[in-house]
Amino acid sequence: MNEFYKKDIISIKDFNKAQLEQIFASTDKIMKLGPIDRREICKGNTLGYLFYEPSTRTRLSFDAAMASVGGNSLGISDISSSSTKKGESLADTVRIMSNYSDVLVLRHPLDGSSRFAAEISSKPVINAGSGTEEHPTQAIQDLFTIRKEKKKIDGLKIGIIGDLKYGRTVYSLLYGLGNYDVDVHLISPESLRIRSDSVYEIKKRLSFTESTNIEEHIDDLDVLYVTRIQKERFPDEEEYLKVKGSYVVGLDLLQKMRDDSIILHPLPRLDEISTDVDKTKNAKYFEQAEYGKHTRAALLGLILNENGF
Amino acid sequence: MNEFYKKDIISIKDFNKAQLEQIFASTDKIMKLGPIDRREICKGNTLGYLFYEPSTRTRLSFDAAMASVGGNSLGISDISSSSTKKGESLADTVRIMSNYSDVLVLRHPLDGSSRFAAEISSKPVINAGSGTEEHPTQAIQDLFTIRKEKKKIDGLKIGIIGDLKYGRTVYSLLYGLGNYDVDVHLISPESLRIRSDSVYEIKKRLSFTESTNIEEHIDDLDVLYVTRIQKERFPDEEEYLKVKGSYVVGLDLLQKMRDDSIILHPLPRLDEISTDVDKTKNAKYFEQAEYGKHTRAALLGLILNENGF
Amino acid sequence: MNEFYKKDIISIKDFNKAQLEQIFASTDKIMKLGPIDRREICKGNTLGYLFYEPSTRTRLSFDAAMASVGGNSLGISDISSSSTKKGESLADTVRIMSNYSDVLVLRHPLDGSSRFAAEISSKPVINAGSGTEEHPTQAIQDLFTIRKEKKKIDGLKIGIIGDLKYGRTVYSLLYGLGNYDVDVHLISPESLRIRSDSVYEIKKRLSFTESTNIEEHIDDLDVLYVTRIQKERFPDEEEYLKVKGSYVVGLDLLQKMRDDSIILHPLPRLDEISTDVDKTKNAKYFEQAEYGKHTRAALLGLILNENGF
Repeated sequence: MNEFYKKDIISIKDFNKAQLEQIFASTDKIMKLGPIDRREICKGNTLGYLFYEPSTRTRLSFDAAMASVGGNSLGISDISSSSTKKGESLADTVRIMSNYSDVLVLRHPLDGSSRFAAEISSKPVINAGSGTEEHPTQAIQDLFTIRKEKKKIDGLKIGIIGDLKYGRTVYSLLYGLGNYDVDVHLISPESLRIRSDSVYEIKKRLSFTESTNIEEHIDDLDVLYVTRIQKERFPDEEEYLKVKGSYVVGLDLLQKMRDDSIILHPLPRLDEISTDVDKTKNAKYFEQAEYGKHTRAALLGLILNENGF
Repeated sequence: MNEFYKKDIISIKDFNKAQLEQIFASTDKIMKLGPIDRREICKGNTLGYLFYEPSTRTRLSFDAAMASVGGNSLGISDISSSSTKKGESLADTVRIMSNYSDVLVLRHPLDGSSRFAAEISSKPVINAGSGTEEHPTQAIQDLFTIRKEKKKIDGLKIGIIGDLKYGRTVYSLLYGLGNYDVDVHLISPESLRIRSDSVYEIKKRLSFTESTNIEEHIDDLDVLYVTRIQKERFPDEEEYLKVKGSYVVGLDLLQKMRDDSIILHPLPRLDEISTDVDKTKNAKYFEQAEYGKHTRAALLGLILNENGF
Repeated sequence: MNEFYKKDIISIKDFNKAQLEQIFASTDKIMKLGPIDRREICKGNTLGYLFYEPSTRTRLSFDAAMASVGGNSLGISDISSSSTKKGESLADTVRIMSNYSDVLVLRHPLDGSSRFAAEISSKPVINAGSGTEEHPTQAIQDLFTIRKEKKKIDGLKIGIIGDLKYGRTVYSLLYGLGNYDVDVHLISPESLRIRSDSVYEIKKRLSFTESTNIEEHIDDLDVLYVTRIQKERFPDEEEYLKVKGSYVVGLDLLQKMRDDSIILHPLPRLDEISTDVDKTKNAKYFEQAEYGKHTRAALLGLILNENGF
């Protein structure tokens, strides 16, 4: 029996290295299969989604993943137009949806919501983003991308740049990287540094340096992971404009980087990576998006098949 | 040939007892089939839905039902974002949608809308709620649940509590129960009693008593069917608060009920049933929701297959 | 190899007569196939849609078409509720969606948007309406309807009536008709005449007359193609009301037409065709809508199968 069968996917912290590697191997397998064989994996299974926060990207990635392995998807993509407007509890909605589907995908703004849903649901629950820290399938996608493009994760030097305070993507990635032997450099404006209440948890898993200067480690990075800096995070627009300019990844910055370095981004991207970077061999963010479909398909295949695939 | 083949499902009043029993038997069969055999039943058929009133619950139930028997669904879940905003008539929209699908599911606020649509449509129409009285698939779901959980319908004592004036669910259920030999007790605040203009029609089919006191028949009921009481139905908030408190089903009330009684609710539920009732063996509202998927699947299977399944 | 394999469908101007006839022949074939054989054509393929302008009709037509040939659809039907709200570029959204699907369907308000998307996308792009002139699949649907109902296109007299200024449907149809030997009569209020900047382009392809009087050619037409006149196009409501009355197709006008003439409309229809025309043998607009599903299915089958179907 495969150990992911009927397992809830709540937090990247629940995964050890061997488990991550198993998902990556299954993803490699998915990518090698032809479309006809691939569609046998979850044939006739139904994915039910509940999005309490809008996220077209993540929802479509799951929908496309499920379609690629032969299943179908249904659910609520915009909870504000649904019965829950009438005040139905998350618990009731989860109970109903688990009657309608074989696996449940939940996005919710509150910490702990997915864990709570998993306890109630009669079907396995996948957390598609909850609260301030958890987005495990994004972390799996990011780790797979690094491994795929760099052939390894251990031993890499990884820079993470941008808004490190508010994006749950960064936290999930850091917890996931904690399973590997990596050097992490966090680069952000002073006001968007990693949250101090999470630093202890992260430090237990990996060591990192912090800097406000994007160029400090740039010539030595294997991976530069870029995230968006949102204007509305700054009380003062002038402050924003100053910061914004210095955290843009363009061809000039790229020239200071190692030739074999890769640039990632969870997308959507605004102007934090200039579009002339897209065509370089270093830009891997669109591949990253595609890998997201395949890692999710692999996860669905493992969760829904007792003996794997 | 099965008599439901290409039949419109407009009103529960159109069904006699034998027909209801046939749907129930087909539902039993659906529930016994494995997922692979089940998906052969409507394989390659398309359900088209048109929701002129939002109803995530009912739409997803049909979507899940159709998926479970191997078909797919498409349509308009929120008519306000569609061409009909430009003023297209229901007739034209129905004509187009019937070109796009094998069976049409319609929800509409007006009485008679489904009957009208059925006359226009080249494909069978299922009423998913119209006007003030008709919601036939909900009634079928409710009747099936009673029969499944109580092993019979004839001879039962059934209490229906809550807002009996505005909810079409209650009317459809009462018309459906008219095919059986049951004792019905209607329990509601004075201002939310069953509509006087429907009483004659209902009395032709079954006899019922009315009461404002939830405890009057409570120790003798086989089934307690609970519906929501909506604040906005009361001109005076104080009136609402008074009523609200006395129509909540909690563990204390449950203790006065027969041990083998069951509690149903069409959902979504707010606080008219307290959540500590959920775990009791009497609570059957989540099973009821699941049976709704299976009764709809059975209905689709009968409508779309000349020789049944 | 079929020449439509992996081809982008951007403009009806890109099609010559032989290519149109090939699509029509494939559509005939689709319509003759039973549902089971038909569903083999695009089995397991995924259509991704991106609608930057709402269009329930066109989106559902593609969704139903894809379902009829065995594929599934996913995407964004209302871009305002998606990540692009955060300002993601069309280019990025197209890149991602092309990772999620085998063929991309795009509707966008700007001229050239589909051509641009096709250059970026790794998957073939179908233009489902862009800018002021391009709606190639609508034109294919319209031409197929004429050919199907009149058994030919060459030699026909075709009247096009209504708002000829703002509707891109009319322009696409005119460019498409340019491949045939037809007489075209354009009938519209003075203020809604065909745009002068397009007249040159159209005149290169076919000759047409213009008139404000609906009755001028009415007794001689093989085809009357009716479009909506929208109130908001008129600065002066009185002007609108005057015009509106004289551009309604009713039974009285029909009596002045040839017995074998047909009436088409891209739908949705408001009151520019009175509903008592619907039941006449001349009314072919609902057939036209159904053919739209089949022409799109044929196109998808050609684009997605190297050796056609």
